[in-house]
Amino acid sequence: MSMFEMIRRDGMARVCKLRTGHGYVETPLLMPVVNPNIQTLPMDELKGMGAQAIITNGYIIMNDPDLSQTALEKGIHAMLGWDGPIMTDSGAFQTHVYGNGINISAEGVVEFQVRIGSDICTILDLFTEPDEPEHLTREKIHVTLERARFAIEKYGNSERLISCPVQGSRYLHLREECARELSEMGATYIPIGGVVPLMEAYRFADLVDVIIASKRGISPSIPVHLFGCGHPILFPLAVLLGCDIFDSAAYVKYAKMNRILTPEGTITVDEWEYSPCGCRVCTEYTPSEIRRLPPEERVHHISYHNLYLSLMEIKRVKQAIASESLWEYTMLRCRSHPNLYEAVRRLQGYYRDMEEYEPLYRKTSVMYTGEETFYRPCVLRLMERIKERYRAPDAKLECIIDEPEKPYMSSMKKYIEKYPSVHFTVKGWMGYIPLELDSIYPVTQSVIPRWAWENKRNASGSSPVDSIQDAGSPQKKCGSKLEWNTLIARAISDIQFGSVCTDLLLKPPLEFKISKKTGRIRNIISAGEHVLSLRAEDGFATLKLPGAKRIHPTGQWRVVADRDAAEFVARGRNLFCKFVVDCDPQIRPRDEVLIVDEDDALLAVGQSVMNAREMRSFKRGVAVYVRESCGKIHRRG
Amino acid sequence: MSMFEMIRRDGMARVCKLRTGHGYVETPLLMPVVNPNIQTLPMDELKGMGAQAIITNGYIIMNDPDLSQTALEKGIHAMLGWDGPIMTDSGAFQTHVYGNGINISAEGVVEFQVRIGSDICTILDLFTEPDEPEHLTREKIHVTLERARFAIEKYGNSERLISCPVQGSRYLHLREECARELSEMGATYIPIGGVVPLMEAYRFADLVDVIIASKRGISPSIPVHLFGCGHPILFPLAVLLGCDIFDSAAYVKYAKMNRILTPEGTITVDEWEYSPCGCRVCTEYTPSEIRRLPPEERVHHISYHNLYLSLMEIKRVKQAIASESLWEYTMLRCRSHPNLYEAVRRLQGYYRDMEEYEPLYRKTSVMYTGEETFYRPCVLRLMERIKERYRAPDAKLECIIDEPEKPYMSSMKKYIEKYPSVHFTVKGWMGYIPLELDSIYPVTQSVIPRWAWENKRNASGSSPVDSIQDAGSPQKKCGSKLEWNTLIARAISDIQFGSVCTDLLLKPPLEFKISKKTGRIRNIISAGEHVLSLRAEDGFATLKLPGAKRIHPTGQWRVVADRDAAEFVARGRNLFCKFVVDCDPQIRPRDEVLIVDEDDALLAVGQSVMNAREMRSFKRGVAVYVRESCGKIHRRG
Repeated sequence: MSMFEMIRRDGMARVCKLRTGHGYVETPLLMPVVNPNIQTLPMDELKGMGAQAIITNGYIIMNDPDLSQTALEKGIHAMLGWDGPIMTDSGAFQTHVYGNGINISAEGVVEFQVRIGSDICTILDLFTEPDEPEHLTREKIHVTLERARFAIEKYGNSERLISCPVQGSRYLHLREECARELSEMGATYIPIGGVVPLMEAYRFADLVDVIIASKRGISPSIPVHLFGCGHPILFPLAVLLGCDIFDSAAYVKYAKMNRILTPEGTITVDEWEYSPCGCRVCTEYTPSEIRRLPPEERVHHISYHNLYLSLMEIKRVKQAIASESLWEYTMLRCRSHPNLYEAVRRLQGYYRDMEEYEPLYRKTSVMYTGEETFYRPCVLRLMERIKERYRAPDAKLECIIDEPEKPYMSSMKKYIEKYPSVHFTVKGWMGYIPLELDSIYPVTQSVIPRWAWENKRNASGSSPVDSIQDAGSPQKKCGSKLEWNTLIARAISDIQFGSVCTDLLLKPPLEFKISKKTGRIRNIISAGEHVLSLRAEDGFATLKLPGAKRIHPTGQWRVVADRDAAEFVARGRNLFCKFVVDCDPQIRPRDEVLIVDEDDALLAVGQSVMNAREMRSFKRGVAVYVRESCGKIHRRG
Repeated sequence: MSMFEMIRRDGMARVCKLRTGHGYVETPLLMPVVNPNIQTLPMDELKGMGAQAIITNGYIIMNDPDLSQTALEKGIHAMLGWDGPIMTDSGAFQTHVYGNGINISAEGVVEFQVRIGSDICTILDLFTEPDEPEHLTREKIHVTLERARFAIEKYGNSERLISCPVQGSRYLHLREECARELSEMGATYIPIGGVVPLMEAYRFADLVDVIIASKRGISPSIPVHLFGCGHPILFPLAVLLGCDIFDSAAYVKYAKMNRILTPEGTITVDEWEYSPCGCRVCTEYTPSEIRRLPPEERVHHISYHNLYLSLMEIKRVKQAIASESLWEYTMLRCRSHPNLYEAVRRLQGYYRDMEEYEPLYRKTSVMYTGEETFYRPCVLRLMERIKERYRAPDAKLECIIDEPEKPYMSSMKKYIEKYPSVHFTVKGWMGYIPLELDSIYPVTQSVIPRWAWENKRNASGSSPVDSIQDAGSPQKKCGSKLEWNTLIARAISDIQFGSVCTDLLLKPPLEFKISKKTGRIRNIISAGEHVLSLRAEDGFATLKLPGAKRIHPTGQWRVVADRDAAEFVARGRNLFCKFVVDCDPQIRPRDEVLIVDEDDALLAVGQSVMNAREMRSFKRGVAVYVRESCGKIHRRG
């Protein structure tokens, strides 16, 4: 079952390697739909423009005596002339659209796909419409799940993926349940089905609901295909929400309607005057030349452009993941249609779902793109943690500084020494942030115009950002002299590790090593032990081995490594997913974690690549990058 | 001076043809900066990727004995190996940056450019810094204008453009004055200078101020170059504001810093993993292969990509003009940096400037991209005209319908017949619109999510959209039975032509020809004469010849054609700019206009392509498309 490996990520979005019977593909992936009767684009053109895998319709082939015979004799790869991975669909959509007149055996159609050598075989699921009654959806899911179980048991193996679509209409609890059951029964490939009517009606906000609900139930290590999604305007948002694979019939469908795909939507061939595209067609022909071509040739050329452009948009999305800026890219792209922008607003309700996959920090700054910036998971999480975890110091006086008046952190020490019993809170773009936390992601790692957050704060009604005001310490009059470095160390540790761990980590006396270059704390030494280092870029702490030992007894931030891996980890090797036995559910990507063996002996400290759910689900790839290891295993008892 | 011709437009943005001594170029245009010492990209590569013209530095060539000699002997075209148009810069920027140590003669540097055969020669203007004192700016402008006058008189001719930069720091009145004086003294090419410091500091909102102020003073028929603007993120906004030409040194400059240009900003070569680009370099190499190249080769390849991508973005902008959707495209692109988005907000203050160039209607719908949609010129203009021009009928009752409850226009007749003494106003995305006007651009020709305008309306404070509430007829109790078709005809005519013309056009009795297909009014017959037709697409009226005759006496909507052209126009030929003697200043693009001869005899009726200011300024291209003509000239007296 170890066919899917994450190699890069940005929140829920990820770049993965998927192993199939005909080699590896990299996701996010767009499969061109190939009509077994008419190949609008020859296979070498598809390959030439970077298509890694194709999808065709097993049901259509099966129902055509000639095609069927050829496919059974030669195999689907030889028949289509494609030596890479081939996915086949089951005809579920056709059955749904053309009704009961179609006679199709659920078992037969999968068996046929298997016999012709398809790499990804799709079960005959029952298509659920967006607005059908719930009892009907329940019945369809029941049948779909039975068929999935049968197909997985009979045909699933390490060379063949069984594609089992999630159904559930817009009943989100049913979507989640269906997805969970499919995951648990061993589905190795899960499309989100029944969404074409939503996409055709531009109901993108409803599509967001369906994707999120499905993703809740799908194990993270299973590739997720958004069935029927071939228009590039949807790729960024769908990938942001964790979809991995798309299929495009759109490239031909739009070409036949004389419509040109662009990343911002479609234009008609008649309004097409300039093509900012480097594909073969756009390089060799001007739009007006293409307009004058005979219809068949025109469809061929426009199809070529449309598919090329769609593949390029997938690449663009992958680069955004690599740059850790997919949120920004998606928000920009979602301005290309009002309904896409509406879909983005729907994300406000899914903070919990997104936060679970949100890294502790990013390597790039948060860029303001509009109001949605204020409900980014990284923003809401910090505000939430300040509310829940931050312990304000006992200060004689509480002072609120307006962001632009804030002194530079490097000169803050002098400032605080001048006013030793005042505690400062900064009124900035995220609301009220204790000055000690001013250097952590994303407070400073952001470009937010002042008018944007001032508008936000002055708006009527409370927003998640505003409601944090009471997190700052209100007007305390008691208290003693504050020690600036201690304040910083405590506040950051509270936010990152929680108060229980902080009290163990920061036992007095504390010493601080200050960077000569930045004037900021570099190392934190507690009772003679170097427990934490602070990173200049994102402001969070790196956990040192002595620190890890102190918080070990709490059982928090723990990843349990399997007996076989323990020795390697103890000697400094990274911990791979398949050796993760258990882990603390609060772990998020880029958290500092302790690796222990099955007897709870500390092996190493490192940085997680995944959240807890992912570590438990994936069977390939690195779970934790080990930074410091104990050298050997100390067994208890 | 007729070197510049508009062939396509969208508001202030335009596609034009510019004639030079070495052929035509089409704007918006990006000229790669070519270093006369080191050609990072060979000329055939520049040509191959679609560069139409190049720019180099006349001052650097002049100051190098070898280069200078070669250029004087062979000419700049042969020296660089470029047979297309070449623009030369004067060294003004170098003088400014490197100070008075540079000895340069204002007269000599222009003469040198002329002698080496430059197609666009730049005067030695004095660079004004964004934040210098006003008296200093005034002095610099004074000198710049003197030098411009001298160069234009001595060297300007139909084969050679004299480039005279507008200076003026951020003193907007000085920018406008300087631009106006340059226009009046016959400058044939006007760069907006002194803006590099604004662009380098990302002060894009200030850049908007400077562009708008300069454009106010520049005659519409003069090409406008935004000096030093080579980053593609700025192209859409700059073109939206009427800039035509850009120059890029950025493609090499960024390449040397190992930075890759993308339409959304720059990324470093280290984070570059996937290139969604079809250029030769991105097709032949993967990003990691480029990373491993020797430095010089890497700079060459990245330069190639950077320039290619920049040229593509210019094409994309041109397509947006062709699709009449540049506003939407710009708003999307301006989400790529918070300071660009801030620049967009600055446009709110420039409604008057933009409205003058705003067409009566567009062929595409207004798409919601964010709050800025509510201050688009087409939106504000309609609200303003309703306030100023709309005459509410005497209705017994005024009723406000919420937009979603609005009956379809086609069934409106029945509705109104059922309630014959009620006048309806629709509460919709633009505010309160009389139901009669519900079909005109952009009320219905728009995609605006309900939450967007409901939020807007509920927001505290009055917005331009809200303040229109009193434009609707408030609770009138008197009045008589309403005639629906008459209401529509009057309201549309009031908005489009004003009340004086409407009273002449719609003298009773009125008859209406209704489209069988749409149920809407097609033709309006007044006292037996077909005066107006209503267009289904944008809802506005087409003026028929009998209608034109009626409003002729008002002197409004009039374009006066020169004696030589009169006869041709009267026989149905389009009116070209160079024959426009005078015109009504209220004319906007796509307005219905009357063409009269110099004796005020009516020749024809047609649709304007330009606003009044443009018709007076341009010497090439069509000013009015003639639809109906009088056949022969009726002379008075």
